Amino acid sequence: MKFSCPQAEFNTHFSLVSRAVPSRPSKPVLGNVLVTARTDTQQVYLIGFDETLGIQTAFAAQVEESGSLTLPAKLLGDIVSRLPNEDINIAEDDDEPVVTLSCSSGRYQVRGLSAEDYPQLPQVEASEPIKVAAEALIEGLRGALFATSSDETKQVLTGVHLTADSESLEFAATDGHRLAVVKTVDESGAPASSVDMNVTIPGKALRELERILQIYPSNEPVSFQLDQTQVVFDLGQQRITTRLLEGQYPNYRQLIPKQFERQLTVDRKQLTASLERIAVMADQRNNIVKLSIDSSAQSLAISVEAQEVGSGLENLPAQVTGENLEIAFNVRYLLEGLKALPTAEIQIQCNTATSPSVLTPLGGPNITYLVMPVQIRS
Amino acid sequence: MKFSCPQAEFNTHFSLVSRAVPSRPSKPVLGNVLVTARTDTQQVYLIGFDETLGIQTAFAAQVEESGSLTLPAKLLGDIVSRLPNEDINIAEDDDEPVVTLSCSSGRYQVRGLSAEDYPQLPQVEASEPIKVAAEALIEGLRGALFATSSDETKQVLTGVHLTADSESLEFAATDGHRLAVVKTVDESGAPASSVDMNVTIPGKALRELERILQIYPSNEPVSFQLDQTQVVFDLGQQRITTRLLEGQYPNYRQLIPKQFERQLTVDRKQLTASLERIAVMADQRNNIVKLSIDSSAQSLAISVEAQEVGSGLENLPAQVTGENLEIAFNVRYLLEGLKALPTAEIQIQCNTATSPSVLTPLGGPNITYLVMPVQIRS
Repeated sequence: MKFSCPQAEFNTHFSLVSRAVPSRPSKPVLGNVLVTARTDTQQVYLIGFDETLGIQTAFAAQVEESGSLTLPAKLLGDIVSRLPNEDINIAEDDDEPVVTLSCSSGRYQVRGLSAEDYPQLPQVEASEPIKVAAEALIEGLRGALFATSSDETKQVLTGVHLTADSESLEFAATDGHRLAVVKTVDESGAPASSVDMNVTIPGKALRELERILQIYPSNEPVSFQLDQTQVVFDLGQQRITTRLLEGQYPNYRQLIPKQFERQLTVDRKQLTASLERIAVMADQRNNIVKLSIDSSAQSLAISVEAQEVGSGLENLPAQVTGENLEIAFNVRYLLEGLKALPTAEIQIQCNTATSPSVLTPLGGPNITYLVMPVQIRS
Repeated sequence: MKFSCPQAEFNTHFSLVSRAVPSRPSKPVLGNVLVTARTDTQQVYLIGFDETLGIQTAFAAQVEESGSLTLPAKLLGDIVSRLPNEDINIAEDDDEPVVTLSCSSGRYQVRGLSAEDYPQLPQVEASEPIKVAAEALIEGLRGALFATSSDETKQVLTGVHLTADSESLEFAATDGHRLAVVKTVDESGAPASSVDMNVTIPGKALRELERILQIYPSNEPVSFQLDQTQVVFDLGQQRITTRLLEGQYPNYRQLIPKQFERQLTVDRKQLTASLERIAVMADQRNNIVKLSIDSSAQSLAISVEAQEVGSGLENLPAQVTGENLEIAFNVRYLLEGLKALPTAEIQIQCNTATSPSVLTPLGGPNITYLVMPVQIRS
């Protein structure tokens, strides 16, 4: 293997796939990146894989000799990221699994491991790829990903559930305390998805997908290949492979109330700022804040009592319909939801102090953020 | 106690003194900031103190009622820093050690502790204050502070040793492996210090002093008050009080060689960049890098061998006088020293592979950075 390319190119792609390399690999070769150079395509191919999530990328290089070797992700990444942006040369030794990286200022030898020991990425045997508009994917991930559970024992709840048919694409995530649902419809009238789909995809893989989508040309649809256990996202030069999460996803649609007795509209930034201040005091206790909806004053009061420490009260103007209500929430759930709602004003809908409330962006994408209230002693 | 002031003013000063408040106070009142308001001066005074280091500040406010109370540093600081920049009102309750903080958006009650329980800052009984130019102080701290030991058991080595007479002010810091000495002379011909001085001041207090000096008008001299156990730095509205470090400071001047057999001049940024790359490989072993000084090639080669992992070699142009030499160092000590030398080019002076080397800035302030080499088996 022998090739040269600009430092910035190697650095960008190497750090991209390194995100799938586990920090504590189960076997040494998984701590490495698989590097393959091909003279016929004049491309270098990189793979990082943690046995669940795989990231692949390819970039153009001047390839003199084809070959393949795995190289330590952290060590090589740390060296390359510190090199000046000029051409670097990478050449494999004839008799050892060692590469020599040379550039104007110096020369590094780095020991790798044979490419033969690197596991194959799982193959997906899909009949046909599913095409999804990149913008719909970005909107769905932005609105739902944050609500997944970070508790690895919660299995299916650590992922986002995707349902698609020809009309719409729906993203749902819940950790058992709150639920985010995003429904996207292709405005051009094109089918949202070419094939019906009903799968749960690990949050970790989707966070990497979201990251790559930020630099993806948004007019290109993203294609999925899907089988019973795996999904591959194809983004041209990059591919993300991940195992699907097994198990029945909760029937979340039945949780969302059809009707609401009370409704209020508030400024999102103002509400966020008030909650962030109140959260300082709520942190001292159990993160519980009380919302007092006042229809005659057309206001929303947010309060917290932290015995022995102090108390806080914030007041905001709100357009209120329905009767007055006192209802309590975990302030973290409110703040995380507000961050994901992209509009200037948001709507809060609720029935009673013990039934779920729903936050929605006003005049924005179709996001439903449901939060369970917390019972408080009066 | 009752006063009002702009949020930004309170926030700046409160967070300044909070830096002296310990995160795990030995008694609850030390986790608080002492707040005193006075109608006669129309000022608010704040103190944070960890029993070694004390920071005081004062700012103008509209004071309606004099009074004094201690308030929780972290809780109140976190709330105030999130408030919008408009006037805030702080009023003490009549019958409880509680303040009510009110502003346009809301109202917070925060429980404090009686000011009577707050310890007095140590008094310094100095005959006359010592005046030192702020610029000299900044130069000395920048060049020496980084070389103190961070190991609390090393006592006197955790501080900077200050020696002053009418001609010069000298700052020295060492952790036993390297030594930084900065000598400043007032160019105006004014005496460097009005009184002879020979003390060791804790690094922690000096880091706070350095921070405050960044916003201090540099044409004002800083005045010190000093006795056997304490020093107070007087910066107008701010004062820093700290206990001095006891014990004999090492006789560091005798460590610095008078003559050198070899000398080289290199570009500081280039050397730093090369060392940072080599450090990635050196981190895999014991941080040891080898410098090969080549007078016929007029170059400096930096290399590292990390068995089983790889090796690295960097080459830089250098103006070399004297014979060739191979000498090894801990790369961290070199990098930390280079960061503190403020000039484009630096000089490295050495004798043998086992005697101390000295780095100095070329055409800059009078900084001597001595590093002990590491013995390597050849």
